[in-house]
Amino acid sequence: MTKFCLTVTCPSKRGIVAAIANYIAETGCNITDSAQFDDADNGQFFMRISAEAETGATLEALREGFAAVAQPFAMNYEFHDQDTTMKVVIMVSRFGHCLNDLLYRVRIGALPIEIVAVISNHMDYQKVVVNHDIPFHCIKVTKDNKPQAEARIMEIVEETGAELIVLARYMQILSDAMCQKMSGRIINIHHSFLPSFKGANPYKQAYERGVKLIGATSHYVTADLDEGPIIEQDIVRITQSQSASDYVSLGRDVEAGVLARAIHAHAHHRVFMNGNKTVVFPASPGSYSSKRMG
Amino acid sequence: MTKFCLTVTCPSKRGIVAAIANYIAETGCNITDSAQFDDADNGQFFMRISAEAETGATLEALREGFAAVAQPFAMNYEFHDQDTTMKVVIMVSRFGHCLNDLLYRVRIGALPIEIVAVISNHMDYQKVVVNHDIPFHCIKVTKDNKPQAEARIMEIVEETGAELIVLARYMQILSDAMCQKMSGRIINIHHSFLPSFKGANPYKQAYERGVKLIGATSHYVTADLDEGPIIEQDIVRITQSQSASDYVSLGRDVEAGVLARAIHAHAHHRVFMNGNKTVVFPASPGSYSSKRMG
Amino acid sequence: MTKFCLTVTCPSKRGIVAAIANYIAETGCNITDSAQFDDADNGQFFMRISAEAETGATLEALREGFAAVAQPFAMNYEFHDQDTTMKVVIMVSRFGHCLNDLLYRVRIGALPIEIVAVISNHMDYQKVVVNHDIPFHCIKVTKDNKPQAEARIMEIVEETGAELIVLARYMQILSDAMCQKMSGRIINIHHSFLPSFKGANPYKQAYERGVKLIGATSHYVTADLDEGPIIEQDIVRITQSQSASDYVSLGRDVEAGVLARAIHAHAHHRVFMNGNKTVVFPASPGSYSSKRMG
Amino acid sequence: MTKFCLTVTCPSKRGIVAAIANYIAETGCNITDSAQFDDADNGQFFMRISAEAETGATLEALREGFAAVAQPFAMNYEFHDQDTTMKVVIMVSRFGHCLNDLLYRVRIGALPIEIVAVISNHMDYQKVVVNHDIPFHCIKVTKDNKPQAEARIMEIVEETGAELIVLARYMQILSDAMCQKMSGRIINIHHSFLPSFKGANPYKQAYERGVKLIGATSHYVTADLDEGPIIEQDIVRITQSQSASDYVSLGRDVEAGVLARAIHAHAHHRVFMNGNKTVVFPASPGSYSSKRMG
Repeated sequence: MTKFCLTVTCPSKRGIVAAIANYIAETGCNITDSAQFDDADNGQFFMRISAEAETGATLEALREGFAAVAQPFAMNYEFHDQDTTMKVVIMVSRFGHCLNDLLYRVRIGALPIEIVAVISNHMDYQKVVVNHDIPFHCIKVTKDNKPQAEARIMEIVEETGAELIVLARYMQILSDAMCQKMSGRIINIHHSFLPSFKGANPYKQAYERGVKLIGATSHYVTADLDEGPIIEQDIVRITQSQSASDYVSLGRDVEAGVLARAIHAHAHHRVFMNGNKTVVFPASPGSYSSKRMG
Repeated sequence: MTKFCLTVTCPSKRGIVAAIANYIAETGCNITDSAQFDDADNGQFFMRISAEAETGATLEALREGFAAVAQPFAMNYEFHDQDTTMKVVIMVSRFGHCLNDLLYRVRIGALPIEIVAVISNHMDYQKVVVNHDIPFHCIKVTKDNKPQAEARIMEIVEETGAELIVLARYMQILSDAMCQKMSGRIINIHHSFLPSFKGANPYKQAYERGVKLIGATSHYVTADLDEGPIIEQDIVRITQSQSASDYVSLGRDVEAGVLARAIHAHAHHRVFMNGNKTVVFPASPGSYSSKRMG
Repeated sequence: MTKFCLTVTCPSKRGIVAAIANYIAETGCNITDSAQFDDADNGQFFMRISAEAETGATLEALREGFAAVAQPFAMNYEFHDQDTTMKVVIMVSRFGHCLNDLLYRVRIGALPIEIVAVISNHMDYQKVVVNHDIPFHCIKVTKDNKPQAEARIMEIVEETGAELIVLARYMQILSDAMCQKMSGRIINIHHSFLPSFKGANPYKQAYERGVKLIGATSHYVTADLDEGPIIEQDIVRITQSQSASDYVSLGRDVEAGVLARAIHAHAHHRVFMNGNKTVVFPASPGSYSSKRMG
Repeated sequence: MTKFCLTVTCPSKRGIVAAIANYIAETGCNITDSAQFDDADNGQFFMRISAEAETGATLEALREGFAAVAQPFAMNYEFHDQDTTMKVVIMVSRFGHCLNDLLYRVRIGALPIEIVAVISNHMDYQKVVVNHDIPFHCIKVTKDNKPQAEARIMEIVEETGAELIVLARYMQILSDAMCQKMSGRIINIHHSFLPSFKGANPYKQAYERGVKLIGATSHYVTADLDEGPIIEQDIVRITQSQSASDYVSLGRDVEAGVLARAIHAHAHHRVFMNGNKTVVFPASPGSYSSKRMG
């Protein structure tokens, strides 16, 4: 039995939910989970539905038939098979904790993604990546070769069919062109509680300001550095007894957790861009379960 | 324009959401928020919808017309006017922090409740209650007069039309008869992270066990002491440097917060009993807003 | 038996702890709690000791005799009687939750402070303050009368012997002169996770930025608005379903808790200014206990 | 320059701190961090001091000379070189997340331990352990061979000089004899917020009880199952939408974090057994820093 999730955005209007729910019922599907959000500020409607095709409807047929429902409401919509994993390219520089964390989560089936490539501007993690039977690409970036380097990255994205790039502590700034081209398809982890401490050395900035909590922020990448729509944030308490190098260590767990939760939400189609903000719906039942023990 | 929320429970079945959404649309209402839960264990379906009657439908008419929708699905349902406050009786013994907290929240309009009476087995809080223009009843409870005392309590509940009793650190155990009669209508705050440390002196028990976090639990009251369906819980970190009397103080804020959140959820019709558990849906947009500044 | 706490700051140097501990022992006192911090960045040493004068030494004698210990190390030091409450002036504008929270905590003996006056630029809270038998002063502030208004505030501070001013959501900016005069003696609560969202309307700023956590920050007031040394911070999670007016309500509990913890730390002499940062030592055993139940 | 930490426990008495601090100063050492706790219930004193031997004193000499200080106070004490790593044996069954987490932390130098062996009753993690150049031992445990299996485990502990056994989701119950022999030297992670949900299947128990937070507890192992002194606990929020298998996944991060923090505390000599409780002092400055980036 096909299990799928349907995401819809359109201008808010009476009758949307009925139109969608009718279609789902008429096609023999049962809604097992749903969430909606009406943004009173901009009149935009967001919905995510999990359903099961109890009488054998295929995703293709469902998708096709939905066009007639969508048209009068000007809906943007997507049907996603719940058993499909999302292809992801991970990019990393020298801090490897997020990479290590994601490799483990993917290995045990805790995230509905397939890592189709790891790209780094350093060689440090070649061995660990290769040991996971994942292609590793070292693409050095200099002032002079940036366009070529990005072209090579985009080649890999296209060849692998990756739908998402995860910047897992990748320390090179992407060009505006690439950010725009991949809008909503690049997730970054920044090691501060944005909008505090943008740019370089956020832990050092936090130390110097004397904050009592440090944080991490996962966001979509836009041309404005550290300004993209925020998906997830979290914090950890520190005291005067922790130095900036302690922050690096304590922040590691927060960063890895925040990034993993952001990817979980994105890969389960729970995140919607809403201008410079995001709508993030709760996880569906069973979606945290992992397939293996370790 | 009438704003209302509709709650529905019934056996899970294809077409429920469509039937509900159609009715809402046909009656000229717009769904502004919705949440659902299908319990795979017992096949029970739970839904809560917030909607606005954009074309003038009255709640009475909506309620009446819905019977035909509900019947084939064997739905239990309720329509609640969002502008109506729930009448609540608060019961308290000698620890007054939850009472004080609730008085403040109600005063500033942060909870959709009206405190129609405060009942205590002590006189300590008569003055503070009366200063809030709320009737105060001192009902002493002894081994001998328990039935009479409870009869008097129930009289007050009926006279005031209270839909909910909140045990805000009320230290007398209610009779099985009263618990059953008021099933799902009495909320208690227990000062431990249940199911740990049931019964008397939970902070002392926690201190002796040497836990590193202490907690509070808000639950519906059933005949089994401290065993009712849990609505909300939270914790606070402690160290060896805190004594059991420190716990009492640190726990105070957690207790007050947990109880207030449980009442917020219940009074906004976000909580459903589900056997010995609860379903608690997220807060609707704007429902945390308060009317006054202080 | 006199219980006291001793705070010491001086340049870090071998033998400080021994010198202090010897003095304490020689004068017949027993150390029941201690904490120290060596700031490797600036070579500054901070210590706080709780002790009991087991053989009858008076605080006056201890203080006097300590001069000889302090001199060779260039120590700044203070002896504080643990039974003395700190006199505090609270200032508030129109948001009353922090005021209400502090009035309750002081009433039950949960904070070692005495509120000697409440000053407001509005009349809203006169009645509630007077009902607590605390003098209330309404001092309007306009562009023209600011120097006179501050002079009147300082008069009250001096007349009451207040050691601390708490800005409990007081919305007027204090003059540089007053900030400097009262350096380290004014604590503010800002309703954001500083350094994010300085200045006006931080919740609106947070809403527009789309953060997933909102926070509050308690700090000493300096001439640079919202830039003073941070004492305590905390956060609460929000989603797209909360509006800026929901933030105001959800933030209220965080603000009140953060401010109360900052005052607890300050009034127990656990906070040290360290340039633009603070050193905050853990609470001593028993220091959270309160005297009354409600 | 030798950096060391000194831990002391003895009956509480005036002059202890002075005696210790004098010795430290006289031997040319500078105290950089200290914490103490007086247990008012049992009159026991606990202290941990970090210091630097600025004038060349060796740890051996310091240890020897301290005997004269310790004797009149009946002190138990230990001097630990801060650059020494603690030898640890990790035991694991089929859930590998804590093992994976610890391997990573040790690899980047975030914990002051050396994993000298991994013992499992299954073969699942042989490859990953061997790839870290750590000896892997598969020791099957049956009803019949338990004494022999434990004898083999103890042999490995003795051969490797391990000071600590970490049960990283090891699902066999150790014999009373082994628990007693290794008292204070075996740390377990239990996947519930103890004392709730002892024994088997705690997540299933939690699911059936309908709690709103699930937790993990790290504790020293004693003959009473899940009753040993608690070192560290933490929780994560769940809702009705999470099943028991979701708990397993969500709990994984909490378990790994709690266990790592407990080991950090133990290996830095910050944990003291105090009857059935523990004293856990804060981390010293810099002690969270790790040596490598990934």
